[in-house]
Amino acid sequence: MQENEILTYAKSWIKEAGEQIKKSFQTTLNIETKSNANDLVTNIDKETEQFFITKINEQFPEHRILGEEGNGDNLEDLGGVVWIIDPIDGTMNFVHQQRNFAISIGIYEDGVGKIGLIYDVVHDELYHAVKGKGAFFNDLPLKKLNEVSVSEAIIGLNATWVTPNRRIDPLILGTLVRDVRGTRSYGSAAIEIAQVAAGRLDAYITMRLSPWDFAAGLILIEEVGGVSTTLKGEPIQLLQQNSVFISKPGLHKSIVENYLKGKEW
Amino acid sequence: MQENEILTYAKSWIKEAGEQIKKSFQTTLNIETKSNANDLVTNIDKETEQFFITKINEQFPEHRILGEEGNGDNLEDLGGVVWIIDPIDGTMNFVHQQRNFAISIGIYEDGVGKIGLIYDVVHDELYHAVKGKGAFFNDLPLKKLNEVSVSEAIIGLNATWVTPNRRIDPLILGTLVRDVRGTRSYGSAAIEIAQVAAGRLDAYITMRLSPWDFAAGLILIEEVGGVSTTLKGEPIQLLQQNSVFISKPGLHKSIVENYLKGKEW
Repeated sequence: MQENEILTYAKSWIKEAGEQIKKSFQTTLNIETKSNANDLVTNIDKETEQFFITKINEQFPEHRILGEEGNGDNLEDLGGVVWIIDPIDGTMNFVHQQRNFAISIGIYEDGVGKIGLIYDVVHDELYHAVKGKGAFFNDLPLKKLNEVSVSEAIIGLNATWVTPNRRIDPLILGTLVRDVRGTRSYGSAAIEIAQVAAGRLDAYITMRLSPWDFAAGLILIEEVGGVSTTLKGEPIQLLQQNSVFISKPGLHKSIVENYLKGKEW
Repeated sequence: MQENEILTYAKSWIKEAGEQIKKSFQTTLNIETKSNANDLVTNIDKETEQFFITKINEQFPEHRILGEEGNGDNLEDLGGVVWIIDPIDGTMNFVHQQRNFAISIGIYEDGVGKIGLIYDVVHDELYHAVKGKGAFFNDLPLKKLNEVSVSEAIIGLNATWVTPNRRIDPLILGTLVRDVRGTRSYGSAAIEIAQVAAGRLDAYITMRLSPWDFAAGLILIEEVGGVSTTLKGEPIQLLQQNSVFISKPGLHKSIVENYLKGKEW
């Protein structure tokens, strides 16, 4: 796999797609929810995914594509080179805020993560990683993640998971919320995983994500020495939905052992 | 009160203070929690507060100052012109993330909010308002807030308040979390109130804030037609701690009537 060449194209395309998304905003400050908000999102989502599909097909015709909007290939395996794309991760933020959303691209070869890119469009912040070569924030190298205790940790966790919900007893994660230093919720899984990679969050927990939500993030996390599993501590499966628990390494073990292990949900 | 003159100085000082804070970061990307993190914050907090005190005393010697770090005046009333200053709102973010914190300045005359400024330093985003003249985001006018239903709302609410805590039964706000479209938590009250003013959040709820956390935000919210009360629906008191519920107008009434009224805590 020609990593340098692929990365160069991917970076260029992700920036170009970001420009197109920004142009889709009204030129005056418009941060209302529009009545046609869902149409707009659908259109921009689909247009952005199609932009990547066209570019990839032209440049790398042998590569396959798994995209959120479903215009890529129907994949039953991860053989060869596969681009896993979320054209707009954080749709609710996109509609309500016109910020705090990201383009997420994970590029896998025979199931192994090789290149990950997460682009926070409005803040013009690009996180990327290449397997074995490190992770970067706007081309500055990110450090290996340090150890931190539960009581010093800030974790990304939405309030949904500590109120009655269909996926987990709220007391399980509620106990963790009480013990950590703080929690945050930004509304984009890709951005939240990128914040863990950048050391700005110490962990990120959510009960259900699809492959395009985490495909890029897992590659970033591996490059900085973080740990990515399901909430049960099992490997994340790339072609299905998973619960996701991403963390600094020592913290991951503490939380699994003291808060999650032996719990049923 | 010479609003234009005061605003011009306040804007200039807030940007200068922001530059000084950014210079205090290490020049290489350093987003670890430092062992001397609390010292650093204390120093930067105090230095920044002192910077404003010096400038205000020089330029407006008759004005009084209420600051989080306690180096301003001892106030028992709000007579005359009072600057209420939080030099770094979102201290935990400042230490852990070196972003997502703000300088917050509310300027009151005889207890009436006249000028509010909230400066998200790292994103270089300045929200400001002048009583009767509107609210602005980087000098672009913010729109009056529109109506939104509970089921369409995104609210700023930390997971702490829906897990067992000392201030409110978690089921009260837990029910609201279940019914809204989504929740977010950014870790800086000033920024979260500014997001409501900008229409990016529909409401913000927290159980305990000090005057410097909300002094500027209340002025922004008034200028865009939002509602600010305690969680009991009572007026917020400027010289004490309060619970704070800030919202779009129709949404405020719905939440008070359907989720908060008649509840005991």
